[in-house]
Amino acid sequence: MAHENFMYQTRDLKFAIKEWLDMAKLLSCDAYKDYYEIDDIDGFLDVSFKICRDVLCPANKDADEPGCKFVGGDTQAVITPDSFKNTYNTVCEAGLGPQFANRAEEGRMPLSWYAPILEMQSGASPAIVMFWCLTAGATTVIQNNAAEELKERFLPKMFSGEWGGTMCLTEPGAGSDVGAVTTKCYPTDTPGLYKIKGQKCFITSGDHDLAENIIHLVLAKTPDAKPGTAGINCLIVPKFWVNDDGSQGAWNDVTCTGIEHKMGLHGSSTSSLAFGENDNCYGWMIGDGPVDGRGKGMRQMFQMMNEERLNTGTFAQGCIGSAYYAALDYCKIRVQSPKWSDPKGPSVPIIQHEDVRRMLMFQKAIMEACRALLYSTYFYQDLSHDASDPAEREYYDGLATIQIPLCKAYVSDMAWISTDQAIQCLGGYGFIEEYAPASLARDCKIYSLWEGTNFMHAQDFTGRKSTMKNGEPMKQWIALIEDFIANKKDAQFADEFAMMEEAFATYKEIVAMVEGWRAENRHLIQLFGTRVLHAASMIVCGQLMLDQALLAAKKLAELGDDHYDANFYKSKMATARFYVLNVVPAVFGTIKAMKVGDTSAMDVPEEAFV
Amino acid sequence: MAHENFMYQTRDLKFAIKEWLDMAKLLSCDAYKDYYEIDDIDGFLDVSFKICRDVLCPANKDADEPGCKFVGGDTQAVITPDSFKNTYNTVCEAGLGPQFANRAEEGRMPLSWYAPILEMQSGASPAIVMFWCLTAGATTVIQNNAAEELKERFLPKMFSGEWGGTMCLTEPGAGSDVGAVTTKCYPTDTPGLYKIKGQKCFITSGDHDLAENIIHLVLAKTPDAKPGTAGINCLIVPKFWVNDDGSQGAWNDVTCTGIEHKMGLHGSSTSSLAFGENDNCYGWMIGDGPVDGRGKGMRQMFQMMNEERLNTGTFAQGCIGSAYYAALDYCKIRVQSPKWSDPKGPSVPIIQHEDVRRMLMFQKAIMEACRALLYSTYFYQDLSHDASDPAEREYYDGLATIQIPLCKAYVSDMAWISTDQAIQCLGGYGFIEEYAPASLARDCKIYSLWEGTNFMHAQDFTGRKSTMKNGEPMKQWIALIEDFIANKKDAQFADEFAMMEEAFATYKEIVAMVEGWRAENRHLIQLFGTRVLHAASMIVCGQLMLDQALLAAKKLAELGDDHYDANFYKSKMATARFYVLNVVPAVFGTIKAMKVGDTSAMDVPEEAFV
Repeated sequence: MAHENFMYQTRDLKFAIKEWLDMAKLLSCDAYKDYYEIDDIDGFLDVSFKICRDVLCPANKDADEPGCKFVGGDTQAVITPDSFKNTYNTVCEAGLGPQFANRAEEGRMPLSWYAPILEMQSGASPAIVMFWCLTAGATTVIQNNAAEELKERFLPKMFSGEWGGTMCLTEPGAGSDVGAVTTKCYPTDTPGLYKIKGQKCFITSGDHDLAENIIHLVLAKTPDAKPGTAGINCLIVPKFWVNDDGSQGAWNDVTCTGIEHKMGLHGSSTSSLAFGENDNCYGWMIGDGPVDGRGKGMRQMFQMMNEERLNTGTFAQGCIGSAYYAALDYCKIRVQSPKWSDPKGPSVPIIQHEDVRRMLMFQKAIMEACRALLYSTYFYQDLSHDASDPAEREYYDGLATIQIPLCKAYVSDMAWISTDQAIQCLGGYGFIEEYAPASLARDCKIYSLWEGTNFMHAQDFTGRKSTMKNGEPMKQWIALIEDFIANKKDAQFADEFAMMEEAFATYKEIVAMVEGWRAENRHLIQLFGTRVLHAASMIVCGQLMLDQALLAAKKLAELGDDHYDANFYKSKMATARFYVLNVVPAVFGTIKAMKVGDTSAMDVPEEAFV
Repeated sequence: MAHENFMYQTRDLKFAIKEWLDMAKLLSCDAYKDYYEIDDIDGFLDVSFKICRDVLCPANKDADEPGCKFVGGDTQAVITPDSFKNTYNTVCEAGLGPQFANRAEEGRMPLSWYAPILEMQSGASPAIVMFWCLTAGATTVIQNNAAEELKERFLPKMFSGEWGGTMCLTEPGAGSDVGAVTTKCYPTDTPGLYKIKGQKCFITSGDHDLAENIIHLVLAKTPDAKPGTAGINCLIVPKFWVNDDGSQGAWNDVTCTGIEHKMGLHGSSTSSLAFGENDNCYGWMIGDGPVDGRGKGMRQMFQMMNEERLNTGTFAQGCIGSAYYAALDYCKIRVQSPKWSDPKGPSVPIIQHEDVRRMLMFQKAIMEACRALLYSTYFYQDLSHDASDPAEREYYDGLATIQIPLCKAYVSDMAWISTDQAIQCLGGYGFIEEYAPASLARDCKIYSLWEGTNFMHAQDFTGRKSTMKNGEPMKQWIALIEDFIANKKDAQFADEFAMMEEAFATYKEIVAMVEGWRAENRHLIQLFGTRVLHAASMIVCGQLMLDQALLAAKKLAELGDDHYDANFYKSKMATARFYVLNVVPAVFGTIKAMKVGDTSAMDVPEEAFV
């Protein structure tokens, strides 16, 4: 049983997009200036909200049970619940499906406007959203890399949602180790056309009945491929052949052999696919074919992967949000026990009990902090594409690139913790599937695993992201935080700035320690990488939250205590305080552990793990 | 789909019971000295292990699907999977079911010997174990409080497992607030016999087909009862009447009206029960009836509750253990990616990758630390009953009473974190139900919720447990830790003692802060209570682990590096190091937060939670 009541609030989403981020700067870019004004976002958010509330979330009820059913058969092996069909069509017809991925379109929306829409969609149904998000990712690879005729043949129907899309990367023996793929592509007499043979697994939306055709992107190697990732190509392999005139042809020998029984996300078909079991599967190479056994597939795949990594953070964010709003609703209604300070008094709604408040505030703080991290990253990404000055584009590209692993790993790790606190708010009812938090906790667990397990992002953050371009982007990213703490001090937030100052000094020690280890104790970077990523995330989230709090304090002073919106700004200030004073202090534990640099996990022989 | 392969290891269980705890002292008590020698535990553990591996865990496969099915009907509303019947009978016939609860029996086993048996049983099947554990709890209340004739009538068949038992406390409007129960008991002309009317929910094992009869203990109030918990009575209400001669009579108007759809533990029937819908339900008062509307039910119920609270920690421990052993097994077998230090080398079993090692070591450290905490508590409890000197009994009762909330809340909170790390070790496979960690993570979530939500234990720990008997027991408990750190320093563990010294000093600051708040800032105790409980747990677990490590170092020195068991002692030393140097440092974050004493969660108006 999956949650079916959409209780999201849009106020903080609008605050982040309209009031906090420098949207005037972004909308002055050529790509947007003739198309959008700041208030236009309201319409998109309001329509999205209504679709999420009235269509997407009610259909999510069926996501767990019946969920997706594997029925077998060559051409239609997976059946989605009936309610999914209408939902899928409604979203695609409203232009809120894969259309966003069309980054070449005149009048396209900024990615940072898409972020709150995607967050709400995932909050409404973590499972159903997968049917258009993977399509969107696949179009990115095609749009950026494929020959013009392939783009014309495939993209329009993918953008409209008539056809779905996937990324077929994982194989039973090749997950984190992408270079180990064994799926083969054999050249044919037709240039660009290859014969495909191989098995893939864990393919999200790998088969389903929501679209007429599914366009798979398949990572495969030619017989003469270089070992490892160098030999990988990326090919377009439709489930049904697409003729030169764009019409749909015969079945292309792509068979779904089963779907996974998962802990959550039952409404998303996680498929095993067999390509070419009848020796009759063909695909088009994306870009030029391999040269000397070297393909471009890895680089192309990463264009989709990077997008999906950021989106994965946003998927997790939706679960955090929906679980929090469900817990909040419950705690306002559920009456139990008098206040401890008034033991003979009446029973009160449990939101009045301190520990319940703490748990709600924790969830709210995690939600808003992660949202600030995510949206700022989408915003940096927009400017990295759309700013007119190349140096500025490079600068923002650096910031976005650095934050993506934090968005993916920190937000997904926090989803497990935060949805648990939502469960806890409900007491025994939290364990019952009729209430929202249980299914959201189950659903969200995938996000720390796919698109690279979270440790791979810790490795990325402490490795490439810290050292790329001689470490310049990382220095700029850290300088942003340092400047803020040094120059924005405000008496209203004296405790918070003091905490951030000490926490930031600690983070600099952490960074220095990592840099010291890079020379000769690199195994310590591996052992502490996950904790370093978390520390970095808490530092930047603390800074972003405090930045939002300063803005809220300013707005509150302008509007006055009696303004109808005053509570929102008070809430923002309190939430920032809570995050900085209660979540950020974990970095002080991290540095203590790092200073000892314990290696006991590596020191013991493998046989000692009993 | 629930896990079905029992991969537990018994080496650390035996170390804790046979080598670490002062079993010579316990077995010299009158209750045991003519019955047991230390090596006798081996037989019990080995038999238990085999039953868990060969009977209990294979049957657990059916715990999720089909699980318990509600079919309705007065006398038999819940059907368990077929495989449960044989399992239940095997366990009961082997004397490993509710028999343990017979604390009046000559030759009974120490509770601390029962702990590893219960841990393995829960590790084998978190769901099935509930069918005898609740019976055991119910017998405790009857044995300690009921009239002799009632004991004779009910206990033998409950101890044998022929009849099941429950505790019917929770009602839709009365969970944490027990005093709010509305179920009524009306006196009849027969002394001690009452007519029962009311609804209960969330009753574990409330109906099932494993036993011929179910003996419910029902909390209820007479019409003239005092408000709140003072008015509560506890009555024996069998599903089928039990005649004076012990034979089973007619249906006693107890109807199961449904079972819950839960996130996990689908094999345990969490039942809603209606008593006296046909006005024909009767029960026996336990002990004397109420006087002036004051009943003894609350105190009686707590005898069971305290037992179940400690057992709940052990249930959670079983999930931590089984998830760890499943992850360990996977990581030894799963080959992926070369080592980062040898990027051109062959792919290796993932246990050789640092972050995987860290995650396994984290789980192992949590498992062994929680085990030390739990077993020491059972051991203290044994001595509190069995020591010949009343002062000694009182001393150990204090230690046990203080540690019970830590056992319940810390272990169950850690279960959510540790099973998550097991999932993470498996990568994408962790999300798949065919592998053990997913169902164990789902199952374990109940333990932070039932038998009092974890915050209630934080309240208990920072409240009554800190102040009872003028705080003497708490001082003694803290002195145990302090003496160890001050007097057991060992050069082999210099880093660890240094860390514990600093952490303990920090914990003393935490305690002083709580004591300071008790006078005038009691709401801060509520706001930080959960964190204080966690800090206390980490401190005592750190001390216990280091104590074990000292013993392991001594044994290793005696046996030498070549001894077949050397790896176990090395492993214990490394695991203690890991816990102290990587887990304990979290207390340094806690003190920083407490020093600021942020109250933002309470400061904002309720309306500001949006």
